[in-house]
Amino acid sequence: MSGIVVQNIERADLAVIDGLAQCGVATVHEAQGRTGLLAADMRPIYSGARIAGSAVTISAAPGDNWMVHVAIEQLKEGDILVLAPTSPCTDGYFGDLLATSAQARGCRGLIIDAGVRDIHDLQKMNFPVWAKAISAQGTVKETPGSVNIPVVCAGALVKPGDIIVADDDGVCVVERENAGEVLAAARARITSEKAKRRRFASGELGLDMYDMRTRLADKGLKYV
Amino acid sequence: MSGIVVQNIERADLAVIDGLAQCGVATVHEAQGRTGLLAADMRPIYSGARIAGSAVTISAAPGDNWMVHVAIEQLKEGDILVLAPTSPCTDGYFGDLLATSAQARGCRGLIIDAGVRDIHDLQKMNFPVWAKAISAQGTVKETPGSVNIPVVCAGALVKPGDIIVADDDGVCVVERENAGEVLAAARARITSEKAKRRRFASGELGLDMYDMRTRLADKGLKYV
Amino acid sequence: MSGIVVQNIERADLAVIDGLAQCGVATVHEAQGRTGLLAADMRPIYSGARIAGSAVTISAAPGDNWMVHVAIEQLKEGDILVLAPTSPCTDGYFGDLLATSAQARGCRGLIIDAGVRDIHDLQKMNFPVWAKAISAQGTVKETPGSVNIPVVCAGALVKPGDIIVADDDGVCVVERENAGEVLAAARARITSEKAKRRRFASGELGLDMYDMRTRLADKGLKYV
Amino acid sequence: MSGIVVQNIERADLAVIDGLAQCGVATVHEAQGRTGLLAADMRPIYSGARIAGSAVTISAAPGDNWMVHVAIEQLKEGDILVLAPTSPCTDGYFGDLLATSAQARGCRGLIIDAGVRDIHDLQKMNFPVWAKAISAQGTVKETPGSVNIPVVCAGALVKPGDIIVADDDGVCVVERENAGEVLAAARARITSEKAKRRRFASGELGLDMYDMRTRLADKGLKYV
Amino acid sequence: MSGIVVQNIERADLAVIDGLAQCGVATVHEAQGRTGLLAADMRPIYSGARIAGSAVTISAAPGDNWMVHVAIEQLKEGDILVLAPTSPCTDGYFGDLLATSAQARGCRGLIIDAGVRDIHDLQKMNFPVWAKAISAQGTVKETPGSVNIPVVCAGALVKPGDIIVADDDGVCVVERENAGEVLAAARARITSEKAKRRRFASGELGLDMYDMRTRLADKGLKYV
Amino acid sequence: MSGIVVQNIERADLAVIDGLAQCGVATVHEAQGRTGLLAADMRPIYSGARIAGSAVTISAAPGDNWMVHVAIEQLKEGDILVLAPTSPCTDGYFGDLLATSAQARGCRGLIIDAGVRDIHDLQKMNFPVWAKAISAQGTVKETPGSVNIPVVCAGALVKPGDIIVADDDGVCVVERENAGEVLAAARARITSEKAKRRRFASGELGLDMYDMRTRLADKGLKYV
Repeated sequence: MSGIVVQNIERADLAVIDGLAQCGVATVHEAQGRTGLLAADMRPIYSGARIAGSAVTISAAPGDNWMVHVAIEQLKEGDILVLAPTSPCTDGYFGDLLATSAQARGCRGLIIDAGVRDIHDLQKMNFPVWAKAISAQGTVKETPGSVNIPVVCAGALVKPGDIIVADDDGVCVVERENAGEVLAAARARITSEKAKRRRFASGELGLDMYDMRTRLADKGLKYV
Repeated sequence: MSGIVVQNIERADLAVIDGLAQCGVATVHEAQGRTGLLAADMRPIYSGARIAGSAVTISAAPGDNWMVHVAIEQLKEGDILVLAPTSPCTDGYFGDLLATSAQARGCRGLIIDAGVRDIHDLQKMNFPVWAKAISAQGTVKETPGSVNIPVVCAGALVKPGDIIVADDDGVCVVERENAGEVLAAARARITSEKAKRRRFASGELGLDMYDMRTRLADKGLKYV
Repeated sequence: MSGIVVQNIERADLAVIDGLAQCGVATVHEAQGRTGLLAADMRPIYSGARIAGSAVTISAAPGDNWMVHVAIEQLKEGDILVLAPTSPCTDGYFGDLLATSAQARGCRGLIIDAGVRDIHDLQKMNFPVWAKAISAQGTVKETPGSVNIPVVCAGALVKPGDIIVADDDGVCVVERENAGEVLAAARARITSEKAKRRRFASGELGLDMYDMRTRLADKGLKYV
Repeated sequence: MSGIVVQNIERADLAVIDGLAQCGVATVHEAQGRTGLLAADMRPIYSGARIAGSAVTISAAPGDNWMVHVAIEQLKEGDILVLAPTSPCTDGYFGDLLATSAQARGCRGLIIDAGVRDIHDLQKMNFPVWAKAISAQGTVKETPGSVNIPVVCAGALVKPGDIIVADDDGVCVVERENAGEVLAAARARITSEKAKRRRFASGELGLDMYDMRTRLADKGLKYV
Repeated sequence: MSGIVVQNIERADLAVIDGLAQCGVATVHEAQGRTGLLAADMRPIYSGARIAGSAVTISAAPGDNWMVHVAIEQLKEGDILVLAPTSPCTDGYFGDLLATSAQARGCRGLIIDAGVRDIHDLQKMNFPVWAKAISAQGTVKETPGSVNIPVVCAGALVKPGDIIVADDDGVCVVERENAGEVLAAARARITSEKAKRRRFASGELGLDMYDMRTRLADKGLKYV
Repeated sequence: MSGIVVQNIERADLAVIDGLAQCGVATVHEAQGRTGLLAADMRPIYSGARIAGSAVTISAAPGDNWMVHVAIEQLKEGDILVLAPTSPCTDGYFGDLLATSAQARGCRGLIIDAGVRDIHDLQKMNFPVWAKAISAQGTVKETPGSVNIPVVCAGALVKPGDIIVADDDGVCVVERENAGEVLAAARARITSEKAKRRRFASGELGLDMYDMRTRLADKGLKYV
């Protein structure tokens, strides 16, 4: 299954994608039934970024970043690179030169289940990365992988064109086919949470707001 | 031992608690004989916070945050929530809605040997959290746990009403009965360190200040 | 091999050392053939610092910081302390008092394959530390170790007088004998990268810039 | 996507499945292009077992083994249970009672990205398990999950009816549609390796057998 | 709180202790309400041992096994040593000489949240150990700790005289005061499981045996 | 420093090497002043093996086992392969075919700070391996590394021709120049331990045997 570049992938509507970015990872994850979250060791290299985009996926050999160059050619405005190594690796596949190239082609960020470097420069460029490691370790260009095939990245299945949402809470993937529906559910959730936030702020308890006392007593909770 | 909420717990004097906050974790930990530290993977979600408060403890099933709602009702001004899951878990038990509710009841922060989410919002709210993970993963409300029973949180025993001190160096627990004594020892330590700091800054060596040279020679240290 | 303090070590020229600092870890690591990197779990306690200096090495027992005092006496302007415990340890060997003492003797920072504490104060002092843990856990002064012997620190061999380069990407060691040569190679690399950055920024692809298309096709990469 | 039990899944031919078991994990993994391997922390609870079977998949909440009971009803002769928790968990979802039930319905073993218990009894029963943890920690039955939906288990996508191969080297998944083809490739590989093994045993070098010397010299390898 | 040896501790009746050993860790843990389990990284150095005994606890500095000698004097027939380091450590605190000494005083085994060595000899001696690491790393005898104080070992509170149960599934602690009650509950559980095992073996489903179908439907589980 | 094969290395006398094997890792490590131990996550793939041999070192790219073929040509009777990847990797670099080849040239085993596979076959062949992972993940042959250069393997410096000692307790390296001296010290230690073992077995306490009581009291230990 290796050695393939899929050139034409379908992407979701940018308006939907941008709507998902505004909702944020925690809300989107809840809105689609608590699915799609990448592993919690995927952390942003700097705080405060919140992005969404269409996944251009990369399957790469450990310690080999050749396919990143191949993938960059496939980028369109609003895309996010998603790199999954074929075995666990913390090497720094990606730095400021590749970020310059990707950004020039409209790329909004990188999700990588491996390492990244030049993080000081990446922050200055406003090129956000979610990675499991920060490592200056360089890579080679010897073994072909694939671009735009389905990959498992940090424990989540990502298909090319799926929507990636990423912020300080982590990274979530939304299936392209469900993007509109998930956005609607996420927005409904935000509206509902706004009302709840006001009630919580006034001192009202979740125990009362969600009517939990009877159910807790039924399950045997005892106050002493 | 599960399914219990202890409603009336004793708390230390707020003046003592606030004094401990000013001393900070490293000093308090030393002042009570190098005990009480929680595991080093408990990290603040943002830097710069330094708090102390009375522990309201939560024993919760993995992936189930029901007891947080129960615990919030038990909070008083100056308290800190301390959540220990009954088995290892990184799920995001707590986010901005629960923080709003807890803050409305006087809560100063959360110590959780699990995950937290909405960290961007929590920082904006000035609601500090020390956690072992940041994860958007949602939780359920199906299994009762307990509130205000003794728990082992991140390797340390925490009894309800014990004082939690937390800052950028980590989290420390002080037994309620010893709080005054520990505060006195911590303050003495700070006074003593001020004098030492001046001497170190002037170039004086610890080898001389603490009179270590003879003891090192006795133990066989050789200069070559 | 324990219980030795080597007092006279050779150091590289400060102009070379400062030149290496300007190049940064990722570049220096590449410039010397992708060697010398310390493990990626060595992270700075605050972001933005970039330093280089001559290694004054410490081999210390787990949970025992006695040798730090011994090492501080050996420091000269432009040095960096490098501590390797003799077995894995996360204790906080080093805090603001020792930093005050080291800084007074010209020390630029600390590399420690263990823990550090008082990190809020260290940041205020501009004393950078790269460590694998932040922990308030105190240490004892009971067991002699050695100063200025070769150590393996976070997976890399560091000899006294070798140059340490450290920034947000991690930590790299350069053998003292090669420092000048590595600096030249690093500077050449920076010049070359500047040109490439401009071309990438203009949208040129790495595939074309590095003439990769033929070689990829030869290795069997297929576009579909 | 939660709360679903798919009752009718397609399975591969048992002769093909048993053929894959004989080939073993390392060979099958190579034969399908180095894909399909589960994470290396999935270890057998006892050594020496080598099995293959059709995956009956389980998506379960952390610390909740309710769906195992649901899945057991779906088992047919030659199946293997594959459990992926919806967030990281090491609890002991499965012990000797469930193994008795599963074995009675023809189940050949369990692959679980979580914990297992009663391992002494499981070994006596010849019921092999590959797990990331051994833990006596009990679970609850409160939250529905799903059975026979696609899951990501230990970093690999497993669809219901895919073939699982497991032995002392770990666990590999083969897509049902490719099973016959993979088996043929695996068998060809075994034949080829037999001949090579004889040549290696006689002292012939891989350098000569695979004609590597020229290519190594071309890549710059130097003998000194 | 350091530097104390408590000489007279209460112990449970050996008949109760031996009864708990027969029940095993998983059953005892369930019988006392799913509490008392030590962390799952505490693994036996060889399989097949199943023991119970009264805890003689040791709080020891990292890399310092002095207190083991002190604790051995406190051992009585049927005791188990439980060592918790004051900060994380993997050193080999214990080997065949100490095991010979402990065994001569009636000790049944060691539970250590750190490392152990000479494991080949320990197995030959039938001296079982549950540890989080196997390491030949030697330790020093420089810093006093304490014996027979309450410790947190591998995430569980262990008081001197509490009963430790350990087997291939891990380690569980039972409070001395509850030992008889827990034994009764554990034995009842074993009796009940025997009957269930027969029904499972005959092919009866847990879904029917525990009458789960209605409750699953109520929670929304759908068969498709 | 990459791309070099050093063909003529010095080796220690086989009689000394075999003597070290008999002493075992824990004793040899102590005999040379508690140095030379590799990280504790280097575990044998099967228990009971105890070997020593001259190190033939391999520095290899992550996921690339080409240099193993190159190294095998350099093997002599009594050698041990020691592989250190240039960045962290768990791939299965080595299996039964390479073991057949290495064994045919007199190799006694493999020490690898990465993964190994075909472990069932390796055990049948009596070819012991100490590794940090067991993984069927295959590797490529694209990037040259080096053979017989100094490497840092699992945290320890290993120079070609140094003696490796490995058993169930882990792996230790002895500098070739010190081998004879270390062997003498190790044998003296064994003799001394024999006498102590008899005294311990008779019930004598370490407290008395090593005359610790006064020193403990001086350090403040209190019996209550």
